[in-house]
Amino acid sequence: MNSTINRLKESVLEANLALPKYKLVTFTWGNVSAIDRESGYVVIKPSGVTYDQLTKDNMVVVDLQGNIIEGSYKPSSDTPTHVALYRAFPGVGGIVHTHSPWATSWAQAAKSLPALGTTHADYFYGEIPCTRAMTEQEINGAYEEETGNVIIETFDNRDPLQTPGVLVHSHAPFAWGKDVDEAVHNAVVLEEVAKMATRTFMINPNIREMQSVLLDRHFLRKHGVNAYYGQEESH
Amino acid sequence: MNSTINRLKESVLEANLALPKYKLVTFTWGNVSAIDRESGYVVIKPSGVTYDQLTKDNMVVVDLQGNIIEGSYKPSSDTPTHVALYRAFPGVGGIVHTHSPWATSWAQAAKSLPALGTTHADYFYGEIPCTRAMTEQEINGAYEEETGNVIIETFDNRDPLQTPGVLVHSHAPFAWGKDVDEAVHNAVVLEEVAKMATRTFMINPNIREMQSVLLDRHFLRKHGVNAYYGQEESH
Amino acid sequence: MNSTINRLKESVLEANLALPKYKLVTFTWGNVSAIDRESGYVVIKPSGVTYDQLTKDNMVVVDLQGNIIEGSYKPSSDTPTHVALYRAFPGVGGIVHTHSPWATSWAQAAKSLPALGTTHADYFYGEIPCTRAMTEQEINGAYEEETGNVIIETFDNRDPLQTPGVLVHSHAPFAWGKDVDEAVHNAVVLEEVAKMATRTFMINPNIREMQSVLLDRHFLRKHGVNAYYGQEESH
Amino acid sequence: MNSTINRLKESVLEANLALPKYKLVTFTWGNVSAIDRESGYVVIKPSGVTYDQLTKDNMVVVDLQGNIIEGSYKPSSDTPTHVALYRAFPGVGGIVHTHSPWATSWAQAAKSLPALGTTHADYFYGEIPCTRAMTEQEINGAYEEETGNVIIETFDNRDPLQTPGVLVHSHAPFAWGKDVDEAVHNAVVLEEVAKMATRTFMINPNIREMQSVLLDRHFLRKHGVNAYYGQEESH
Repeated sequence: MNSTINRLKESVLEANLALPKYKLVTFTWGNVSAIDRESGYVVIKPSGVTYDQLTKDNMVVVDLQGNIIEGSYKPSSDTPTHVALYRAFPGVGGIVHTHSPWATSWAQAAKSLPALGTTHADYFYGEIPCTRAMTEQEINGAYEEETGNVIIETFDNRDPLQTPGVLVHSHAPFAWGKDVDEAVHNAVVLEEVAKMATRTFMINPNIREMQSVLLDRHFLRKHGVNAYYGQEESH
Repeated sequence: MNSTINRLKESVLEANLALPKYKLVTFTWGNVSAIDRESGYVVIKPSGVTYDQLTKDNMVVVDLQGNIIEGSYKPSSDTPTHVALYRAFPGVGGIVHTHSPWATSWAQAAKSLPALGTTHADYFYGEIPCTRAMTEQEINGAYEEETGNVIIETFDNRDPLQTPGVLVHSHAPFAWGKDVDEAVHNAVVLEEVAKMATRTFMINPNIREMQSVLLDRHFLRKHGVNAYYGQEESH
Repeated sequence: MNSTINRLKESVLEANLALPKYKLVTFTWGNVSAIDRESGYVVIKPSGVTYDQLTKDNMVVVDLQGNIIEGSYKPSSDTPTHVALYRAFPGVGGIVHTHSPWATSWAQAAKSLPALGTTHADYFYGEIPCTRAMTEQEINGAYEEETGNVIIETFDNRDPLQTPGVLVHSHAPFAWGKDVDEAVHNAVVLEEVAKMATRTFMINPNIREMQSVLLDRHFLRKHGVNAYYGQEESH
Repeated sequence: MNSTINRLKESVLEANLALPKYKLVTFTWGNVSAIDRESGYVVIKPSGVTYDQLTKDNMVVVDLQGNIIEGSYKPSSDTPTHVALYRAFPGVGGIVHTHSPWATSWAQAAKSLPALGTTHADYFYGEIPCTRAMTEQEINGAYEEETGNVIIETFDNRDPLQTPGVLVHSHAPFAWGKDVDEAVHNAVVLEEVAKMATRTFMINPNIREMQSVLLDRHFLRKHGVNAYYGQEESH
């Protein structure tokens, strides 16, 4: 394997280990992958291995059709979902799937997560959508790949880099980003805004989405061409 | 005592110590047991001993009628419940009882916990039932044994290994598994799905049970004859 | 000071330090005292001192009228409440006051905490009462002593050792026990059952108090003359 | 830079590091500043720098118009809000901004936080107000400075040292104090009372503000001219 894949294994290992650190996973309920766009190879967590047993060497390398290229372990059972998303979303470099409890509760509630404040607006440009329920045919067919397809369908009219996450109906969230670190970051944010949205509606059941002008201001101050948050690259 | 019982004491000690680690217990509010099906002997936590004082040597060995076979401590006051379940559920190898707060809240609410998403479906094949209230006669009689009996009655039409847990009305959960590690695992899952179900209903009070086809798919992908989650045994 | 008071200072120090350990306090929002019934002297936390600065030597000794007997620090501003309770409740040996968040929420909600399950029944023999609102005269008078008086009034028909805690209206909980360790224990239980009761009502708003026969069984199995929980004294 | 500014950098560094310790921030979602009233210089956190990379030397010094006086990093993007508040509130010595989850949920719910108990009354003399929604012109203009202006407008009839915090509509809280330690302290209290108020309304949706006589008693026993909480200065 070349040195890019080697570095990616390191990043994917660290990203997987960040999930329990940020309290996003119980047991093995989560997995992270990253893609090398040049070779089209994806590095992903092995299936059912506990986080304390993960090493760089048990990471699995697959191609964009999910075929194993390198590794003696089986890749995560969610691999077909990951590669479907990489195929459909060319700007995405890393993907995180967890059953983090607040976001999963929204997915189980079959509700899209509305933008209620600037914490949300700093990372997600509008609501975080919940997919439709999958059909019996999809569930009994290539289920994990179809999970990817129903996410892709949900983003027909959305830019996946402006809404870097989704709630899969009756299941749990996926988050992503231009690289694997950003994907983990967005998974943490998704959990935090899901928590705060739940409480916001407890406090005021009649609250509506935030003003679109405030949503614009916050998202674009961090992500627009004139972004002014953070330090210049030299720092 | 033979070496099987000796190893079982080790496992039961570790399983008891896992309860505070997973934040399932406050003080001594929990106990774990395991059975050696060959001898019919059960190893169980001593009553009222704090987790930091537990050692392999103060574990108590009882037979299936609850008679002390070995040990200088009194066994958990819930011992008659444990042995009743072992007698009725021949496939069960380990049992965990806790007052873990989310599952206990469902037990106090006298509500069965519906399957709302794939986290639940990965471990429990349908709702986690809440027992009926016990009668005055049962409560004033052999109370702990009757607690076992009301659980057994609740499983008249259920396979205890497909639904490895229960909520005892106005009391708290029991969870089990084919061995004591699986029992602890299921106790953690039960607490986590109880937490997420509570929040799911807060977000959407009108949500219904998940699609049965999705429940089937997830339960059977982990537990069916064609299970494909995790690594082969060689790993 | 005699050796009894010396040992009491040690116990009260340890009990105060247990409050942040059990996450019952933020900053200095809590205090513990204990009484030596022979001398009638009470050892109590100094006012406004942070937990990491507490030592055995800055504990304050007061008499049952709240006069300082020993110590260079001012005693907790809640001292008049503590001594009022010691005067009225002769069986009480230790008192804990905190603003633990779940119990405080019930106090702010002006609601008595009903017995909903066996966790509650194992320690409190029925509901944990909330006091009436204090009058303008009481609040503007000897406020801290009047706080004790309104608690005492609430226990007119209750045995303080069977209900070892109270919610003070718009304020926070007090808990107690036959000694200071039991008082801390009961403060932890009160917080835990307040948390679980809140969630129980979220899950089922129509739930009622548990069956009185089950309440009797659990309270008396731990506290009755025929108690059978835990080990004999020799252990 | 003179020694006052030097000491202030130390305090502001420590105060920033206290935010993750008190679980008030995720990632870099918070910033603290302090002012030297003699020089009119403000020390503030650099923008987008993680807490584990903060040092005394990357703190930024700005004047009351927000011009950088010292430091090679860009100051927090919220600097115009901080300096607007320092200009308007002459008694304020330190300011904390976080997205702490409970207080942020109230801000997102667009609800002022009523005084429901003595924990609140010990620090905030009445409700903690939520600002009005900002206008499109304010949001598209000098947004961060206008955020300061809408806070100042909210305090037209309030003493900022008696109500040392605010909820910014659809955004998050700001807290302050006579110095930066008090500001952090008040930010912690604001989060705690926001948490307890949410739960209080869950338990009793009909609860009203606490009695004003009790609010007076608690606020003035800690902050009035005859305050009697805590130790004399000699301790």
